[in-house]
Amino acid sequence: MALNIRGYAAQSATSPVAPFTFNRRDLRANDVDIDILYCGVCHTDLHVARNEWGNARYPVVPGHEIIGRVKAVGSDVRNFKAGDLVGVGCMVDSCQHCAPCQQGLEQYCLEGSTLTYNSLDRQDKSPTYGGYSQSIVVREQFVLRVPDQLDPKSAAPLLCAGITTYSPLKHWKVGLGQKVAVVGLGGLGHMALKFAHAMGADVTLFSRSPGKEQEARRLGAEHVVISTDADQMKAVTGQFDFILDTVPHQHDLNPYLATLKLDGQLVLVGLLEPIDPPLAAGALVRKRISVGGSLIGGIAETQEMLDYCADKGITCDVEMINIEDVNTAYDRMLKSDVRYRFVIDIASLG
Amino acid sequence: MALNIRGYAAQSATSPVAPFTFNRRDLRANDVDIDILYCGVCHTDLHVARNEWGNARYPVVPGHEIIGRVKAVGSDVRNFKAGDLVGVGCMVDSCQHCAPCQQGLEQYCLEGSTLTYNSLDRQDKSPTYGGYSQSIVVREQFVLRVPDQLDPKSAAPLLCAGITTYSPLKHWKVGLGQKVAVVGLGGLGHMALKFAHAMGADVTLFSRSPGKEQEARRLGAEHVVISTDADQMKAVTGQFDFILDTVPHQHDLNPYLATLKLDGQLVLVGLLEPIDPPLAAGALVRKRISVGGSLIGGIAETQEMLDYCADKGITCDVEMINIEDVNTAYDRMLKSDVRYRFVIDIASLG
Repeated sequence: MALNIRGYAAQSATSPVAPFTFNRRDLRANDVDIDILYCGVCHTDLHVARNEWGNARYPVVPGHEIIGRVKAVGSDVRNFKAGDLVGVGCMVDSCQHCAPCQQGLEQYCLEGSTLTYNSLDRQDKSPTYGGYSQSIVVREQFVLRVPDQLDPKSAAPLLCAGITTYSPLKHWKVGLGQKVAVVGLGGLGHMALKFAHAMGADVTLFSRSPGKEQEARRLGAEHVVISTDADQMKAVTGQFDFILDTVPHQHDLNPYLATLKLDGQLVLVGLLEPIDPPLAAGALVRKRISVGGSLIGGIAETQEMLDYCADKGITCDVEMINIEDVNTAYDRMLKSDVRYRFVIDIASLG
Repeated sequence: MALNIRGYAAQSATSPVAPFTFNRRDLRANDVDIDILYCGVCHTDLHVARNEWGNARYPVVPGHEIIGRVKAVGSDVRNFKAGDLVGVGCMVDSCQHCAPCQQGLEQYCLEGSTLTYNSLDRQDKSPTYGGYSQSIVVREQFVLRVPDQLDPKSAAPLLCAGITTYSPLKHWKVGLGQKVAVVGLGGLGHMALKFAHAMGADVTLFSRSPGKEQEARRLGAEHVVISTDADQMKAVTGQFDFILDTVPHQHDLNPYLATLKLDGQLVLVGLLEPIDPPLAAGALVRKRISVGGSLIGGIAETQEMLDYCADKGITCDVEMINIEDVNTAYDRMLKSDVRYRFVIDIASLG
């Protein structure tokens, strides 16, 4: 048993994320022991720390955009060795035998994947603690290799924001000759612009407020449409093959449906609540369009995404913080005051 | 100008469908003049006659499931001759040059297709009148050939109920090895069972009330699930690749989403109103499922469907009525008291 691991945790829905010391299970034969270097700050961290989804198991040590260096490996581990630069995303285990797991889609594990934090270990039922800590022990199959070409700090958010946007763009075969729109310019949205552009699509950002044109263009958008401007929205009626909606709270999807072509698809990656205002079924029927969702990505696809990023020179735009500033970062994130992802320098744990 | 064509029309939202005599435009060079034999009674007829969608242009002569015999053809018509058995569905014209029209998807014409009734002719802006009448004049490209093997009475509803269910099953590639569910056992639902079964799928009917097992099995379903029975619904969690929802009024889709597999698709063909209760976005995200819609089918696909029906021996189950009974038929249709489509014998116009 590894004792006195230092981290930061929320102890209740109303308490700030604060220093927390815990004991950690020993390394199993197929585990990798990772010294954490950097951890991205995802909107999910805030949702769970504040129990906004009603499923928090306190204490909650958030963080699932983890970059670290392998410290030790279990006796059966063959693919990693001490010193390797590695990543851990949203999952640390799954059943490995259901149909989705067999297809490399562990995020859709029929038994439920084990999440990096706020979950229970499949073997000993101990709580899982995330990346706001010195170290983590993860089953080999859920450890990603971080290519040397990637800057480790700005690679951290690839493990959630990156794969969450990359996976649906690949699944729905976004590419050259297609018109793609991204709703929302946050941690996910800025990655969606980069990926859709890299995949060859003609990319538009839908934004609620003006002033983001220059940033959007820098990130890969060809066009910016102000979604609150009726004339601008009308001008793009029936334009898009695919819309990736990254907004993490309820909003009206119907104006976006109007901008889809025949057979267009809108995919939600941020929203988990009921779709309200309600979707107009007539809009779906009259253009044979679909509204769907997508959840992060599988482990093999996450590795593919990291390699793709190394090949294309893609990383996240990040703002580095010390861990004692994480509560301030949450407040700023709620005001969209971040370009575009906070990343914690875990060295600041001291 | 053809004078004194006899038909039945609604004169207002509250008036019954009653005898109506009108003048009809002359045959153009590319038109086919059709003596109507039979006309199916679609839920849309009732919606429009009673102005439930707020777009009725009275007088409304309903009917878009038309079987008739060619009486005469315009000078440029090459594919039809007097005496041919033909069909007319929901559309009688479209722009023919937009991208959807060029793909044979006239139902999604960007300029709007010309509907068989309650529309305006593209050339002279005269109102279009549907199949509750002696005859109709239709542009050659929108006339279907009815194979000899099909019984003309029971073929009539193929022109709307048939193609509306056939098209999405083909588009989403339903076939052998797939589990498909159909929501609702009405005019559309009974055709969906027949088609999905003929295409090789393992077919389930979702029904709100018990007692339909025998009928459903006769029509092609292997299984019947009572959607109001929580245990039965739970037993089919995560079972289906594809759900075709034929229900024409608002209902909760969320229980059906739970029965879809990873990457499953639910397609609406009956509902045109807002989806209320709201869809759970989390359910879409957690299984990468989509909810979409589909509108009738293109002309070439409608011909393909008629030929498929001739080949497979598929027709609608119909109850023949005289035209003076159409208001009673509407009332019975609202109570789902029809197996499964009323068809008007137009000879009853006298």
